[in-house]
Amino acid sequence: MDERAAVLAANAAFYRAFEDLDLAAMEAVWLNAPYVKCVHPGWSLLTGFGPVMDSWQRIFANTRGMHFELANILAEVVGDLAWVVLMEVIETQTPEGIERGLVQATNIFQRDGGRWLLIHHHGSPVYMPPSEAGPESMH
Amino acid sequence: MDERAAVLAANAAFYRAFEDLDLAAMEAVWLNAPYVKCVHPGWSLLTGFGPVMDSWQRIFANTRGMHFELANILAEVVGDLAWVVLMEVIETQTPEGIERGLVQATNIFQRDGGRWLLIHHHGSPVYMPPSEAGPESMH
Repeated sequence: MDERAAVLAANAAFYRAFEDLDLAAMEAVWLNAPYVKCVHPGWSLLTGFGPVMDSWQRIFANTRGMHFELANILAEVVGDLAWVVLMEVIETQTPEGIERGLVQATNIFQRDGGRWLLIHHHGSPVYMPPSEAGPESMH
Repeated sequence: MDERAAVLAANAAFYRAFEDLDLAAMEAVWLNAPYVKCVHPGWSLLTGFGPVMDSWQRIFANTRGMHFELANILAEVVGDLAWVVLMEVIETQTPEGIERGLVQATNIFQRDGGRWLLIHHHGSPVYMPPSEAGPESMH
């Protein structure tokens, strides 16, 4: 398997753990390191393996079901790091009903002992496709 | 200068170009490559040097003044890639008045010919600090 394919497999395993609400699988896809980081949509930063896993536990405990479709997946590899950029099309079953959302994500992976492990996840809510994005946005 | 310091200097140059609304300086901090990518807060993905620079031009043309404070800057370097995670505290002068916002950012840099150049910027609006972030959020 070439490295890009290995990175895409690691990325797919992350979303499978997410969709399965499987904390053990989620722990297995992340590097257990103090510098791993996670930004959930609308949240500020979580740093460290423990706080990041605590956040997944809270999210999984409050989610009845979740379905992902991943779109526009772009992966690049440079040495022992790789980053994957994609759009998450999400349907979430919550106590209040089904929520649908678009999330733009950046995932960074590090090769550690021959395995690609997640070290950074940044997801952000999408309100405008770029073609409609105008000067009224924050940046 | 050690590599982490060089990355932080490149990151500072990016925000200086942004604050100065200086397109030439902005072009100089990015790698001119088809795989560079940018996610402005609330937007979906822009890919390629041209589209990314077009977005800065539009943003600069519609911004009268902008002031950044950068907080919680964390930088890591692995080989020829580095990533910087930080909070942007932004005051923007727009035609409608001053807008204040918090943006969580992930910036990825690549070492190219001895220089650290930006290859990915992902900024996202922050609504909740993690301590208040609860299960009601999208993820």
